[in-house]
Amino acid sequence: MLHPRPPRGAVRHSPIASVVLTGAEVDSIAGLLVLREQHAFALYASQATLAVLAGNPIFGVLRPALVPRRALTMEMPVELADAEGVPLGLRLRAFPVPGKPPLFAEGTKPDDPDQAIGLQVSAAGGPALFFIPGCAAMTPALREALRGAACVLFDGTLWRDDEMLRCGAGTKTGQRMGHMSISGPEGTLAAFADLGVRRRILIHLNNTNPVLLTDSPEHAAVRAAGWEVAEDGMEIRL
Amino acid sequence: MLHPRPPRGAVRHSPIASVVLTGAEVDSIAGLLVLREQHAFALYASQATLAVLAGNPIFGVLRPALVPRRALTMEMPVELADAEGVPLGLRLRAFPVPGKPPLFAEGTKPDDPDQAIGLQVSAAGGPALFFIPGCAAMTPALREALRGAACVLFDGTLWRDDEMLRCGAGTKTGQRMGHMSISGPEGTLAAFADLGVRRRILIHLNNTNPVLLTDSPEHAAVRAAGWEVAEDGMEIRL
Repeated sequence: MLHPRPPRGAVRHSPIASVVLTGAEVDSIAGLLVLREQHAFALYASQATLAVLAGNPIFGVLRPALVPRRALTMEMPVELADAEGVPLGLRLRAFPVPGKPPLFAEGTKPDDPDQAIGLQVSAAGGPALFFIPGCAAMTPALREALRGAACVLFDGTLWRDDEMLRCGAGTKTGQRMGHMSISGPEGTLAAFADLGVRRRILIHLNNTNPVLLTDSPEHAAVRAAGWEVAEDGMEIRL
Repeated sequence: MLHPRPPRGAVRHSPIASVVLTGAEVDSIAGLLVLREQHAFALYASQATLAVLAGNPIFGVLRPALVPRRALTMEMPVELADAEGVPLGLRLRAFPVPGKPPLFAEGTKPDDPDQAIGLQVSAAGGPALFFIPGCAAMTPALREALRGAACVLFDGTLWRDDEMLRCGAGTKTGQRMGHMSISGPEGTLAAFADLGVRRRILIHLNNTNPVLLTDSPEHAAVRAAGWEVAEDGMEIRL
């Protein structure tokens, strides 16, 4: 979430007013360590994710005095605010999605239901955008939440569950990693077919995913099903 | 340290055969989290630095079975090897330098003398390169170790101790951060003036350092004193 009116004249500056985490996997949280030092922003995450951060002293580089950590209560809408509590004009609702704890934290504690979450974001009175970068399965509750949405950014990690094994890039299935696949009868294309979501955008694509190749049949299939594939620098207007 | 003969034919590959850490500050260790997953390499560091890694479960992304952690004993030369123990043809000597614990770990434990280290690296029978990215002061022992060296890469963080305060970029002095300055009677240029080091290269320059501006008087001063300024992609032949 960017600051709507960044202060001017500062020698050092970052427009980032708040950060919302959807999980504690390393690809979600390592970026916190390369943000500008001594920059104030508000950090929102589930209790489960905040517990992972608290268990790793290195995240102390985000000084508590500058970077307040705010726990998201599932299903409870919150008005996003910057570090000083100034509202950003965005309403956020977090909700649990099927997932798993981060790989590096597996086995260290009982699974928590809020390890992976989805986000619903909207500006005052405007349409909602859903952000769900990791999701292990479509549930009835999720289906109803997404029905008719203006825009959904959704887990596009793998085309098929055994993709990494087939191309020799790894030993894990998508299910083992907490991701549903795009294809197949239980896949994302099928799950969204009758949901009436206006814009559907695949995000978080693994580099083994053939959908990334714009001349592949898999890319053609997602386009034909009404999906877009996210790219760096993409801007979305609702 | 790169693998001399990378294996061929792998779908995924990294030429990195070993990594040697000179400290546990976030700018030294956060990069470990963005290395290719499931890639085997050997990780060398002081006991103090390995203790910081062990205290942060997130570094479990480097699986112990793939990334052995090897403690460096100060002043004890070691033949660098990859994860499987295959020698890389490089001899390494680690030695303590004046420094401090990482900012995020300050106050949590007694200071350890090996929080900041320097490295001496050489190929069989060849000249030595010294790598010292952080150093709070020149000591008599360090002076004698460096005398007549073929090449020294040295802490060039700040031009002057109060540089960050003067330009409004921060509240800390160089000494507070564990860095000696380039200029001044106790500075790096003065300390190396009579050491007879063949190549002297400034590294780890802060973005407030006027030496980075090639048309600055400070840049001219370091060049006149026989120093080079490191740049991305630099190759050094001894």
